[in-house]
Amino acid sequence: MTTHPPAQLQRGSHRARAPQDGQLRTAQLGPLALETGGELPEVELAFETWGELNSDASNAVLVLHALTGSTHVARGATGEEGWWDTLVGPGRTVDTDEYFVVSGNMLGGCYGSTGPASPAPDGRPWGSRFPFITIRDSVRAEALLADQLGVRSWHSVLGGSMGGARALEWALLYPERVRRCAVIACTAASSAEQIAFAQAQVQAIRLDPAYRGGDYYGGPPPSSGLGLARRIAHITYRSEPELHARFGRSEQGDEQVLGAVLPAERGRYRVESYLDHQAAKLAGRFDANSYVVLTEALMSHDAARGRGSLSEALAGASADFFVAAVDTDRLYVPEQSRQLAAALPGTVPVHLIHSVMGHDAFLTEILQLDGALRAAFFGRAQ
Amino acid sequence: MTTHPPAQLQRGSHRARAPQDGQLRTAQLGPLALETGGELPEVELAFETWGELNSDASNAVLVLHALTGSTHVARGATGEEGWWDTLVGPGRTVDTDEYFVVSGNMLGGCYGSTGPASPAPDGRPWGSRFPFITIRDSVRAEALLADQLGVRSWHSVLGGSMGGARALEWALLYPERVRRCAVIACTAASSAEQIAFAQAQVQAIRLDPAYRGGDYYGGPPPSSGLGLARRIAHITYRSEPELHARFGRSEQGDEQVLGAVLPAERGRYRVESYLDHQAAKLAGRFDANSYVVLTEALMSHDAARGRGSLSEALAGASADFFVAAVDTDRLYVPEQSRQLAAALPGTVPVHLIHSVMGHDAFLTEILQLDGALRAAFFGRAQ
Repeated sequence: MTTHPPAQLQRGSHRARAPQDGQLRTAQLGPLALETGGELPEVELAFETWGELNSDASNAVLVLHALTGSTHVARGATGEEGWWDTLVGPGRTVDTDEYFVVSGNMLGGCYGSTGPASPAPDGRPWGSRFPFITIRDSVRAEALLADQLGVRSWHSVLGGSMGGARALEWALLYPERVRRCAVIACTAASSAEQIAFAQAQVQAIRLDPAYRGGDYYGGPPPSSGLGLARRIAHITYRSEPELHARFGRSEQGDEQVLGAVLPAERGRYRVESYLDHQAAKLAGRFDANSYVVLTEALMSHDAARGRGSLSEALAGASADFFVAAVDTDRLYVPEQSRQLAAALPGTVPVHLIHSVMGHDAFLTEILQLDGALRAAFFGRAQ
Repeated sequence: MTTHPPAQLQRGSHRARAPQDGQLRTAQLGPLALETGGELPEVELAFETWGELNSDASNAVLVLHALTGSTHVARGATGEEGWWDTLVGPGRTVDTDEYFVVSGNMLGGCYGSTGPASPAPDGRPWGSRFPFITIRDSVRAEALLADQLGVRSWHSVLGGSMGGARALEWALLYPERVRRCAVIACTAASSAEQIAFAQAQVQAIRLDPAYRGGDYYGGPPPSSGLGLARRIAHITYRSEPELHARFGRSEQGDEQVLGAVLPAERGRYRVESYLDHQAAKLAGRFDANSYVVLTEALMSHDAARGRGSLSEALAGASADFFVAAVDTDRLYVPEQSRQLAAALPGTVPVHLIHSVMGHDAFLTEILQLDGALRAAFFGRAQ
């Protein structure tokens, strides 16, 4: 599918749902030079939209997904649940009756954009040959998508977790194209600990013999390695008190943890069964190579890279900023959001989502930011 | 090596170092029935001692190691550094001129005790056939060692991390044999989060094709899997601020993180290099099967198992307790130590080690407990 140029977008009355709302489409962007010196000769970027671009193209909102997220932010024509349904939709904080909402799949991902599973020029999947993608590379591709959609300047760019890194880079790479920027549960740069946990996840995938150095297409995928990566990640997305309250030391169903003489044959704790489930769920929906590429991209996230000090780097942004963190987030700790806010131009408060859950509350509890986001950004389209 | 019965222990004058101080020895314990229903037909337990048992056998102190620790608690005849050198030695908190200090290698470990690498009755290594060991199983073996050493009752039993779990179980399985019990950076039961991180570590080892289900002896060991387990564990043993302060986002030496077109060929962050080093170090000194067995044992740790509520379980102990935690420990969080202390009979304070480091400060900063331990336990041998 190719993108519809803006002139072809249906300009119905407000309050009517556009027929392509929440439908996956693909934009052909041509070749893209990458930050590490590599190049992709032909880039496709998957995207979805909701609502309609107004006549002066002033109501466009870009929403950017996290590591394993997709472009499906909100319900659309198909009714399929979106990951920020509570935030984006008719009458929601980001009101799709008022705003033209765009969501772009990150370059290197596996939800429609050019990634390791895509055919290289020789027709075979890129696999191990797929280049190192940075957050900035993806944002440059997203800017080409914006051009095709007729969006010269975003009313606002919003993202959580890796989506927050992308939002921040948008404001720094294209200050003239971002009027407002929301960085939620994300920080100015990936920290030593985030890098450490990310490295363990990448190594888990590479350790799976099915991974075959990344060239596993046509054979069984490295589900165990990807599953292990997800286990590690998922623990860091939650909090110790939440895991304790939900699972404690309970055994799964009638399984008995001390029920076998060999440890490999014992029953499971409920928290193990839960992580087994999370692992299998991700392995069933995500490509391991894309997981590696996006994890590497996230490790590379550093708003200050090549731009002097953090304050100097952020001084280049002209957007109004909105910064938020989850109070129990131990992966993107609130203190790092405070450091980002302090280094931004002007006075930027840090809004807190209160939840026992940890990082993932940026998804499940995003509605806590409704009032603050409406007050800061979404009073009306302008 | 077999154990010297106590009558054969040299009874030199105080202040003289016993020639076998800090020398690895082994006790033959015979068969052992296990908590899951399995049996080991022949158990050897490795141990070291420092100082001498006094005439009424009242000065014996048992020190128990953590997951990958050995019996080498302190320097001895060879001068080799011990892991609690600052705590145990002549003139130290646990004064080996006054006390007869014993350290036992956990059953299933790889520092001299019967473990998966030991020969099974058929002469081949146990490997995948090695049974599930619990903390209680190891403590029962340690009690047989105490019998052989002529120690009917310990002046005190001390342990940190997994060693703390063993110390607590000593006080519950053999209340009449433990007069004082120090549980440091450990809790009443492994939590959901500790189980979750432990499961990921066990799965990392099992994912390594070199693991061969546990029957890798004679071939290359699963160093990558064990190394990945160690990476995950090591991050949890430290704190986010410590990793940030030590490494930040620095690149390793002249390696360039964005220096290659393929992510697999890029340079490393310093924190990655550090974890590579920790992984290689452990893989070079530890057996992967023992890591699995001891990790499973630690997951099984639950002072209340089969003993009613936690308070009911702990009511069976008659020891004086000493509980301590590291203020920045995010694996054995101080709150869990407070819960343990609150459930113990009487009023038990929780002593805090203050450190940016996290869990590992129970090793590096143990001297912070010198005054409190002397006041509580080590005023004089009695």
